[in-house]
Amino acid sequence: MHHAMSLTACSSHSTRIRVRYAETDLMGVVYHANYVIWMEVGRVELLRAAGIRYRDFESEAGLHLAVAEVSCRYIAPARYDDEIEVEATLIKGGTRMLEIGYVIRNAETLCKLAEGSTRHVFLTPQLKPAKLPERFHDMFGAGVK
Amino acid sequence: MHHAMSLTACSSHSTRIRVRYAETDLMGVVYHANYVIWMEVGRVELLRAAGIRYRDFESEAGLHLAVAEVSCRYIAPARYDDEIEVEATLIKGGTRMLEIGYVIRNAETLCKLAEGSTRHVFLTPQLKPAKLPERFHDMFGAGVK
Amino acid sequence: MHHAMSLTACSSHSTRIRVRYAETDLMGVVYHANYVIWMEVGRVELLRAAGIRYRDFESEAGLHLAVAEVSCRYIAPARYDDEIEVEATLIKGGTRMLEIGYVIRNAETLCKLAEGSTRHVFLTPQLKPAKLPERFHDMFGAGVK
Amino acid sequence: MHHAMSLTACSSHSTRIRVRYAETDLMGVVYHANYVIWMEVGRVELLRAAGIRYRDFESEAGLHLAVAEVSCRYIAPARYDDEIEVEATLIKGGTRMLEIGYVIRNAETLCKLAEGSTRHVFLTPQLKPAKLPERFHDMFGAGVK
Repeated sequence: MHHAMSLTACSSHSTRIRVRYAETDLMGVVYHANYVIWMEVGRVELLRAAGIRYRDFESEAGLHLAVAEVSCRYIAPARYDDEIEVEATLIKGGTRMLEIGYVIRNAETLCKLAEGSTRHVFLTPQLKPAKLPERFHDMFGAGVK
Repeated sequence: MHHAMSLTACSSHSTRIRVRYAETDLMGVVYHANYVIWMEVGRVELLRAAGIRYRDFESEAGLHLAVAEVSCRYIAPARYDDEIEVEATLIKGGTRMLEIGYVIRNAETLCKLAEGSTRHVFLTPQLKPAKLPERFHDMFGAGVK
Repeated sequence: MHHAMSLTACSSHSTRIRVRYAETDLMGVVYHANYVIWMEVGRVELLRAAGIRYRDFESEAGLHLAVAEVSCRYIAPARYDDEIEVEATLIKGGTRMLEIGYVIRNAETLCKLAEGSTRHVFLTPQLKPAKLPERFHDMFGAGVK
Repeated sequence: MHHAMSLTACSSHSTRIRVRYAETDLMGVVYHANYVIWMEVGRVELLRAAGIRYRDFESEAGLHLAVAEVSCRYIAPARYDDEIEVEATLIKGGTRMLEIGYVIRNAETLCKLAEGSTRHVFLTPQLKPAKLPERFHDMFGAGVK
């Protein structure tokens, strides 16, 4: 990671995902747990847009940004081959935890399909709670309310 | 479905699941979205214990019990090949919606791994909101608070 | 579908996919079954490049292009956040079946990660074998050897 | 691992799996990649029946039994809530590789749904090919043809 970067400098980001056949179910629409995976995709791209490659963060900081809580409210179904858009937004940054919000839309109609949030904690490789080292504070918007 | 059955008569049920390699991730523990799938498994077995085979309900009532909301709080990691236990409990029954709560534990240590809930609505095959037909009221504990 | 299109006119196509955290496992690399899902993604994009939106084909022809056989040979691991490239190629078209081959590479290093193939049959909505209606023959390269 | 055990002493084993809603797709039946996951479940239970807990093998031998090749032929669809049976059989043991065959049946009707095979190699944690240490030879049926 070679240049200045910060999650607060780019606190919202949209990512497009094409719905896979594998993600649908017997009801003919996307199985609900897949939205949680899409949130992961949106979150990683939010970080990338802010200059943070999550893979590098894991190896450089020696920390995981683990999911401590997830919630999702389903509004309208996503269907096979739809292009959907995941908008991920930093809600609250900190040195011990992070909150990210999501709005999932049909990218064509802009119809809102779901909204949700995740709360994260930093964990050591042994999965013990950790404090974000000071050199990463700006990056993760520690202090943002 | 040949005999009396009711979700309120068996409003809590535990199901065991063996963690698959496929369910783990790079962190060395179970990927968080899989808990949402385990909730589905626990919910279906709660219904079965109450005499309701969900597959038959779908075809007999011509309705889906779709997930309108899910939340999960992660407490401790589940690991590959652990046996876990999903306890599903009817929190609130109704003619239009249903709420189910979950506690996920390590079946051996009984350590609590996660807890969560799902809110459901009845939908037609065209995915429009529907009211549960009267003949299914007792089955789904409509009126339970 | 408004213009001339044919699978033989575009019998090979490459699609890029970013590896999701959800797709990794305890070994630290991508879980092997996910390559089978990536083949699906590559196949659908091969069809799209040839002017065939698979979703529309399903509804217009009233047929599924079901997987009858899959094989995959794993050569080198794909890792989290890698960009991979799925090259899908029509191997054999027909009125009853189709064969597609795949080469999966790391999009950056071009290192070959896996190769595989799928054999497909056309099925009715009741999942009975079907013959491709004549109006779709050109589209699916029926007769290609 | 406290007692004598060997894959050749129990070279075939059947495991039951209940089909999850999450495993179905838009076609109304199980998505094909899930059979590959079921093979993993059947393989792990074959090992367990032979006295080998795969999790312990990984940590004690410091090796992975990675999938080098998979193939599956689909014969009839598995449906939501079906109970299926995965019969896994050691086809060929060795000090560098292993072959396992699978027959997947509907556990109620015994109708054959699919058959397949996997070929495995032993890998170090750095994912380099490895030879099975001599103390594990009997366990994995090295020498079986």
